[in-house]
Amino acid sequence: MITVKKVVLDVLKPHKPNGLEFATLLSEKCPESLINLSVSAVDENTESVVLVIEGDSLEYERILATIQEMGGSVHSIDEVEVLNSSEHRDTD
Amino acid sequence: MITVKKVVLDVLKPHKPNGLEFATLLSEKCPESLINLSVSAVDENTESVVLVIEGDSLEYERILATIQEMGGSVHSIDEVEVLNSSEHRDTD
Amino acid sequence: MITVKKVVLDVLKPHKPNGLEFATLLSEKCPESLINLSVSAVDENTESVVLVIEGDSLEYERILATIQEMGGSVHSIDEVEVLNSSEHRDTD
Amino acid sequence: MITVKKVVLDVLKPHKPNGLEFATLLSEKCPESLINLSVSAVDENTESVVLVIEGDSLEYERILATIQEMGGSVHSIDEVEVLNSSEHRDTD
Amino acid sequence: MITVKKVVLDVLKPHKPNGLEFATLLSEKCPESLINLSVSAVDENTESVVLVIEGDSLEYERILATIQEMGGSVHSIDEVEVLNSSEHRDTD
Amino acid sequence: MITVKKVVLDVLKPHKPNGLEFATLLSEKCPESLINLSVSAVDENTESVVLVIEGDSLEYERILATIQEMGGSVHSIDEVEVLNSSEHRDTD
Amino acid sequence: MITVKKVVLDVLKPHKPNGLEFATLLSEKCPESLINLSVSAVDENTESVVLVIEGDSLEYERILATIQEMGGSVHSIDEVEVLNSSEHRDTD
Repeated sequence: MITVKKVVLDVLKPHKPNGLEFATLLSEKCPESLINLSVSAVDENTESVVLVIEGDSLEYERILATIQEMGGSVHSIDEVEVLNSSEHRDTD
Repeated sequence: MITVKKVVLDVLKPHKPNGLEFATLLSEKCPESLINLSVSAVDENTESVVLVIEGDSLEYERILATIQEMGGSVHSIDEVEVLNSSEHRDTD
Repeated sequence: MITVKKVVLDVLKPHKPNGLEFATLLSEKCPESLINLSVSAVDENTESVVLVIEGDSLEYERILATIQEMGGSVHSIDEVEVLNSSEHRDTD
Repeated sequence: MITVKKVVLDVLKPHKPNGLEFATLLSEKCPESLINLSVSAVDENTESVVLVIEGDSLEYERILATIQEMGGSVHSIDEVEVLNSSEHRDTD
Repeated sequence: MITVKKVVLDVLKPHKPNGLEFATLLSEKCPESLINLSVSAVDENTESVVLVIEGDSLEYERILATIQEMGGSVHSIDEVEVLNSSEHRDTD
Repeated sequence: MITVKKVVLDVLKPHKPNGLEFATLLSEKCPESLINLSVSAVDENTESVVLVIEGDSLEYERILATIQEMGGSVHSIDEVEVLNSSEHRDTD
Repeated sequence: MITVKKVVLDVLKPHKPNGLEFATLLSEKCPESLINLSVSAVDENTESVVLVIEGDSLEYERILATIQEMGGSVHSIDEVEVLNSSEHRDTD
């Protein structure tokens, strides 16, 4: 089974929702995940953040849609990690 | 369940209360937490500190209110970590 | 038995498929592998990515063919790791 | 219970007592602690030292008084670590 | 018993065989070894590679001969590790 | 009980005794210790060495006297580590 | 008992014997040791190597004599580590 274990995204977001709210709302759409958001640059109306999302099985389309609903846009996919493993896991 | 595990804040605070008192008062509002405060810059009347707050389940609103009661202001949320996990925990 | 455990490739790819799709499609051809793709440079029509592919027993010809099917080209093999071990493994 | 686990102090001290005597005298007032003193700058009559004091439960007022008794002065509190934990400990 | 556990070689090789083929052919002559090849410089007809060969008991003469058979030449021995141990090992 | 666990000394010594003899003679006066001597600068008649002495319970006066007997002088105490622990130890 | 556990030597040696032969011959005189030789500079007739020799109980005089027999000369002792321990060891 192929699962996405990690995605690192460069995201431009408005100041609202703030980083904590942004990460929390995103987390609600990513069961069994750990999300780290760190601010890389701040402008008058926007801020650039690096999102490191790690999880048992990430759904990128859902992540993308949630970011856009909050007014953010994905500038680039900086890193992805994909596992192909035949070992069964009960976390999905 | 979604829990906030880590918040890194850039905070401007007056010299009084000093860093130790500041961190201790904040700690009283954060059960099961570890707070690290380090000074990044010192001015005549104020100092900039980086607060790294890690815990089982952090309440940001309470943290923010406590900082403001002590005369501090949050300049930016530099990093947050949010966990979405179905495993039950008895620490909350 | 000799097995290829790791290959690091410098690959030029079109923007489509994006990094996540690219790594996922590649992963389908690499049983028991972990693929990490990170973007090193971005141009108008292409992007350079570093692919780190680790696995129990990698098949390079299959990896190469899959990259080419997706419009990518291997610029260089930057690193390889090859194991010669007499210990039996049941993962193949 | 809230306990101070770590204090990092920037201290100006006279050459006498020397660093070893200074740390040893301070240690006598800090049960269950580990004190690291390292010299950061040396002047004709004084030297700047960084004191890293880690312990089960540090008493800052006592530390401060001891430093002053030895002719030193705390220039700044550079870092503090405060734990709020409900787990009982028998070290206090 | 004295055994060679590691050899790091700076090798100049033609583009053919490529790095993967080169390391694989070398691996066939090194039982119980792990070979890491990384490219350090690329020229029109040749490339410089660093070979890190680790094993239970490496035979340097055999390694050297194999490199030469593939058109490569050892520029320098950059590092060697030699063990003198009285503990018996059944891997030889 | 308070014990000195580590002392880092900046020492100026003549070329004779050499570093190995110097550290060995010093070691004879420090039961249950590990001494690391590394040369930081070399002059015509002298060399500067950094002595890192770690032990169960170091006796600084004895260390100092031994260094002086060998013609060396302690330029500075760069670091000390002092433990205050109520746990009994049978190494003294 | 006092034992020398580590010696780091800066050695000038002729190109022959090469690094592998040099380390192997040295290893024969150092029971229960691990020798790492890395080349730091190469001249027309000589090369500078750093020898890191770790062992249960190193005999420096024997190491020195062996280096000289192979045409090498010790430029400096860069680091030594000496253990004073009352624990008995059966490796000597």
